[in-house]
Formats: sequence, structure tokens, C-alpha cells
Amino acid sequence: MYMVDVIEILKRVKNASYGLAGYDTYSKNAMLNAVAAALSERENIDAILKENGKDVALAHKNGKDGTFIDRLTLTEDRVTGMIDGLRKVADLPDPVGETVEERTLDNGLNIRRVRAPLGVVGIIYEARPNVTVDAASLCLKSGNGVILRGSKDALNTNRAIYSVMRAAILALGFNADVIGFIDDASREAAKEMLAHEEYIDVVIPRGGEGLKNFVLENARMPVIASAGGNCHIYVDKSARQDIATEIAVNAKCQRPSTCNAAEHLLIDRTIAAEFLPKVCAALFAQNVELLGDGECIKIVSNLVPMTDEDRATEFLGYKMTVSIVDGVEEAVSVINRFGTKHSEAIIGEDERATGYFTKYVDAAAVYVNASTRFTDGYEFGLGAEMGISTQKLHVRGPVALRELTSVKYVILGNGQIRR
Amino acid sequence: MYMVDVIEILKRVKNASYGLAGYDTYSKNAMLNAVAAALSERENIDAILKENGKDVALAHKNGKDGTFIDRLTLTEDRVTGMIDGLRKVADLPDPVGETVEERTLDNGLNIRRVRAPLGVVGIIYEARPNVTVDAASLCLKSGNGVILRGSKDALNTNRAIYSVMRAAILALGFNADVIGFIDDASREAAKEMLAHEEYIDVVIPRGGEGLKNFVLENARMPVIASAGGNCHIYVDKSARQDIATEIAVNAKCQRPSTCNAAEHLLIDRTIAAEFLPKVCAALFAQNVELLGDGECIKIVSNLVPMTDEDRATEFLGYKMTVSIVDGVEEAVSVINRFGTKHSEAIIGEDERATGYFTKYVDAAAVYVNASTRFTDGYEFGLGAEMGISTQKLHVRGPVALRELTSVKYVILGNGQIRR
Repeated sequence: MYMVDVIEILKRVKNASYGLAGYDTYSKNAMLNAVAAALSERENIDAILKENGKDVALAHKNGKDGTFIDRLTLTEDRVTGMIDGLRKVADLPDPVGETVEERTLDNGLNIRRVRAPLGVVGIIYEARPNVTVDAASLCLKSGNGVILRGSKDALNTNRAIYSVMRAAILALGFNADVIGFIDDASREAAKEMLAHEEYIDVVIPRGGEGLKNFVLENARMPVIASAGGNCHIYVDKSARQDIATEIAVNAKCQRPSTCNAAEHLLIDRTIAAEFLPKVCAALFAQNVELLGDGECIKIVSNLVPMTDEDRATEFLGYKMTVSIVDGVEEAVSVINRFGTKHSEAIIGEDERATGYFTKYVDAAAVYVNASTRFTDGYEFGLGAEMGISTQKLHVRGPVALRELTSVKYVILGNGQIRR
Repeated sequence: MYMVDVIEILKRVKNASYGLAGYDTYSKNAMLNAVAAALSERENIDAILKENGKDVALAHKNGKDGTFIDRLTLTEDRVTGMIDGLRKVADLPDPVGETVEERTLDNGLNIRRVRAPLGVVGIIYEARPNVTVDAASLCLKSGNGVILRGSKDALNTNRAIYSVMRAAILALGFNADVIGFIDDASREAAKEMLAHEEYIDVVIPRGGEGLKNFVLENARMPVIASAGGNCHIYVDKSARQDIATEIAVNAKCQRPSTCNAAEHLLIDRTIAAEFLPKVCAALFAQNVELLGDGECIKIVSNLVPMTDEDRATEFLGYKMTVSIVDGVEEAVSVINRFGTKHSEAIIGEDERATGYFTKYVDAAAVYVNASTRFTDGYEFGLGAEMGISTQKLHVRGPVALRELTSVKYVILGNGQIRR
């Protein structure tokens, strides 16, 4: 059994969300700025860092690795980053109330489609305490109640951050139940949360494949989820080879651990003998380990032989496959088979080839002559985001403020009845 | 065990869907018109009606009720209706390729959001053979492969319709695998279908609550689903009482079996003594059975006492509740508690009240001074539809052609890399 009354928390947030849906932009920004101010107070920072110290000590004791501990650890700088994030979200335009489309029918009915909050958004996340603040701020700004359920490894930190946020909202005279915190990181508590579509409208998992699958299997409500990014760069025979090389290196090396980093390079057979040695040299110069198919190895001998399994692998490091394809048709077919519908790029000047690629590649973001690394809410000019959706319903690509709203029909009449 | 190779069908449709995504409007319309022409041929009509006769005979033998048998039964007229529907969908604008939004960033990247097909849409439906044609036509026009899985009670009819459609597409020289038909109405076959999100991008249940829950529980892919419509009419003290009465009668009686018919009438206390007798008289005149709360019964004595359970009931017939509320705030609170997020109306002239109502009511369609009966793809000017979504992600309200597409980012650069 789990320790907290999950249903009671869900109910409170659902009730509070109805009021929040009507908060004006000024009130929502006041909440975010009040939370930012509270997180800047010395005693709150100290309290959060102290609780974080407990989590970090426990993580060391449990033998967690360096990356894990790095993500878990808060510092004054990182708290400042969270505060900056809050203020940036406050500065973003409010999507709620925006009229997306309007028409007037012959019978005089005026039909508008208007952005409205989703209602309550559930966030289930791993040991990154900054998500506690980021997720809450995006949900509140878009008029949604939010239920936070972080991981066991960050429970002390998350609880401390949550109580600072709650107190700041209360002190402002607003209903602090707009944020709910599941103070129990058991699977049972998460399952209970996921069983109640009457209280949670949408759930967003933020973490690895295991967490995503757990949520997809247990959630009764819709899920906004990301697959990893098994991204490709296809270099067409019409490519300018200088920019092709620069983009391949950038997409692989600028930050290899991200989901929009490229993992696989596909090269048009026509230019392979000429281009492959150049691009391999540039990648080797960045210490990238290159795996190649048989044909590539004939051209560049120091490639490691690759398998179909490598094609399906998101390396997330200085490792990449290179292989030869018969033009854009085969490139698209490989991408649609092995890609994860995230970010895919063609480098080429031939508009027939680039048009084919953008039409037939099934991915959230399809690039022509640019690095896949741009798939990001900030880079796209959308502001902060809650990850990159690789689903097709509702949102593909960055999940920013607007993607945390729904669109409802508002119909104005003057007595119309249906004949 | 089930009888057909479900996975093989899914794979074929998935493969065909990649090609279909690139079909131009002319080709897709040619397919729809070819299917329409084939369904007009004497021998095909005879074959379909003969198979339908078997299903109808079996339904009688199994003791199905009149409504069920009526929905199942095909006639020449109904086949003509299906053909008309196909030609209407062919006439609708093609949503695929439409640019929804475009911006150019400081770094020169041109970012467009472009409508693309979802991929493969699965339809699981009950014993209405017309869905076989309607669903296929909407999916094909929006560039999606479609997997049809109808009910056991219409299996012979559906099989006959499917083979006419398939032959017509083949004869045109197109890939007939764009439509898949699960020739097995077992639950096991449906479960197998719902387990493969790698082949089916979205699934749409069309039928009652039992079917919807079965799909929600078993689907690994996203679901577009409808709740029933437990719709309300709230009459504010500022209402023009003549149109309030007319709308209440229309919303209840114009076609009571539909999901957008009104089930509950909420009346502002201020006008109850004056308005209630008038509206009750108009509804009684249409043979509507009226249930009322205690206060209403004091005003109109021949109301049946109502319970909270009645408030949550979608009567779908000549039955309605009337109750008194303290203004728009209580009306909204009752609606958000008992409604099913479908269609809700306020009748009133006071813009503060109508503004409050449209902002705070959580429903797909919110009406001011009009009948809830307008929530419909045709009525909204969207053309044919696949039901009314009461979900919040992706689509609220009618699921028409555009709602069967996704929006992907297409980014055009000239060598941009991320710094």
C-alpha cells in the first residue's frame, strides 16, 4: 500500500483547476513570480539544498553513477537557473483564450475555436529536481492544475521545493491546490494516479523508456510521450558537401547525449567514393567511433562493421553508423523503418529529392540543409518546453505552452435551433 | 485463437500507408470515386444485400431488438447513401500538405508546420455496415491507411463491402493494401490489433461505452474516443424566455437519441417561478417526461422527483430533468460535475454570465443562445465526420478530415548548425 491519499490529492487539484482555468494572465504571472521570489529567499534555498544533500548522500550509498548524481544534485547556481526559468515562463504569451479560428455559418451561428487549459496535467518524472519547478510553471501558465510525482531518489528535494511553491501561492491568496504533490514514490501510488482519468486529463512521463512504458501501460487518460531520437542525416548526391560535413559533425558532436543528436549517416551511392572519406575524416577528428556497412568499409577501411541492430540503436555518445543508400527513396525507407519519428535531415540542393524527403519521412521534425540539433522549444522560438513529443496526436515536436492547452468550440447564436 | 493473420494485415497496411501519404488529391479522389462507382454496380449491390440478408437473419435468430436490426439492415437506398457519402468526401478539400503556420528565425531557418497523414488509423465499430465505407473514405482522403474491424453481427456484410472496395482500388492500379479488413470479429483478434502501436498510429472506437472501454483498456496506441453526451441547457435570469423555451424543446426533441440532445435543464432561481411553468408546458406538449428537484415540484406539481443518479443519466429519449440553480456559477459547477464534456448551452443576454459560462464550462462545444443539436461535422461546415471527440488532446468536437491528420515540422535551412 502507498502512504498518501492519492485520490484526495487528485480531487483537490481537479477542483482547483476549474478556478485556475479562469485566472487572467496577470494572476498566473503573479503566482510564478511569487514562486520565483520565494525560491530566492536564503532560508528556502538552504532548506532545499539541505534536503537535496540527503538525497545525494542516499544516491551515493545506493551506488548510483556519476551522471545520475549530477542530474540529482542541486547547487545555488542550479536553483538560480530554476528561478530564471520561472521568470521566462512568466514572460511568455498566455495561450489561454486565444481564438484559433472563426467562422460564421449561413444560419448566423458564430463558431470560434478557443484555446482552453487541458484541466489537470500529471507529470511522472525521474530524478531531476528541476522538473518539479519547470513542469509546475508551464502547467500553471497554461491554466492547468498539475500533479507532480517525482522519483524516490529525489523525494526529499522535491518535497522541499513543493512546500516553498505551495507556501508562495498561498501567501498570495490563491488556491494552492493548483499544484498537487504525491509524497510517495511507490509504483502503487503512481498506478493509483494513472487510474483516474476523471481527475487527470493528460499525463506526461519525463524520463527513460522504462518509465514511458510503465505510464503507457497503466494510464487510463491520454499520454504525451517521447520516444528516444534515433535520428539520421541523409546526404543526397545533390548536396553541397562542405555543409553536409559541417552538419553531420554538428548533429553528432555538438551535444551527443541529447535526443536530437544524429546517430546515423546515410550517403547517396553516387557520391559515396568522393564524400565518405571527407566526412569520416571530419568525424574521426572529433573522436567519433564510426561503424560502417560493407560498401563503406571498402572505401574507408578503418570503420567497424555494423549490424541491423546498430541501425536501431540510439548511441547518445561519440559513435555513429555510416551506410550507403540508393538515393532518397531508399534513405526514406531506411529512416521510416529504423527511425523513432523524432528529427531527420536531408542535405541536398535538388528540390525533387528534398521535397520527396519532407513529404515521405514520418517524423516530428524534418530538416533540409540544417542540423537535427535544432529540435527544441527554445530554438524553435516557443520558449520553455516539456520535452519533445514523437507521437502524432495533438503535438509532434516540442511540448511548449500552447501544446498544454486544448481547443474548444464556442458557438454564439441568437436563438438558432436545428431544423 | 483468432482465424486471420492480424499482424500480417497490419504490416501490409502500414507499408502501403507510406506510399499513400504522398498520393496527390487527384489520385485519392479517383480511388473514392472508383469505390463509389463499384458500389453502384448491380451485381455488387446484389452481393452486398445478399450477405446483409444473412446477417439480418442471424440477428433475428439471436433475438436482437428492432433498433439493432434497423441499424444493421442495408437497403438500396442506404447503399445509395453510402455512395453519396463517398462522393461528398471526394469533394471536400484535401487537408494534407496544408501549411498551418510558418516563421523564419533570426538564423535564417524557415520553420513550417505542415499537415501530414496520421499513418494508419484503426477503426473498431459495432453493427453499422455504413461505417465500413464512411471510415474508409475519410481515412483514404486524409492519406491514412485504415484497418477495419467491425462487429460479428455484420461480418458477412462488411466482408462483401470490403471486397468491392478492394477490387475497385486494385482495378485502378493502386495499392489496395491501403485498406485492411480484419475478417474475424473475436475479441482476441481485436486485442492483437490493439497491441501493435508500431503498425497502427491511432485507433477510433465507434460504438457504445463497452466498446470504448475495451479499446481504452487494450490499446497501446493513442485513442480518439467519445463519451456519451450528458448535455445541459442553462437558462440565465437574463434570458429571452421565448428563445429559451424554443431551444430547450429543440435540444431535447429534435432527435432525442443523439449524443448532442439535451438531457437536463437548469434554471436560474430568479426566474424559476415565471419561466418553469412555460417551459414545462412546452415540453409536456412534446410528450417529454419531466423529472424535477423539490423546488421545481413546488412550482410545477406534476414533475417526477429526481435523484443525483438522474442528473448523471443520458436519457436519449423523451425524458429530461429540470432543476433550479443559483445563477451561472452553480450552473457551471453542476455541468462540470455531471456533464460528459460534450455540448453545453447557456441562454442569456448578460455578457458577464455568458462569458463566465463559455470560459468555465469544460466541454467540447459551449453554446450561447443556440441549441446543442448543432454539434456535428456537417452542421459546423466541416463535412463528414467520424464522431464527436470528448477528449481534450488533439481534437474536441467533430472528428473530420483535418482531425485525421497530424502536423509535422518542416525546417528549411542553408547549412545552419547549432552553436
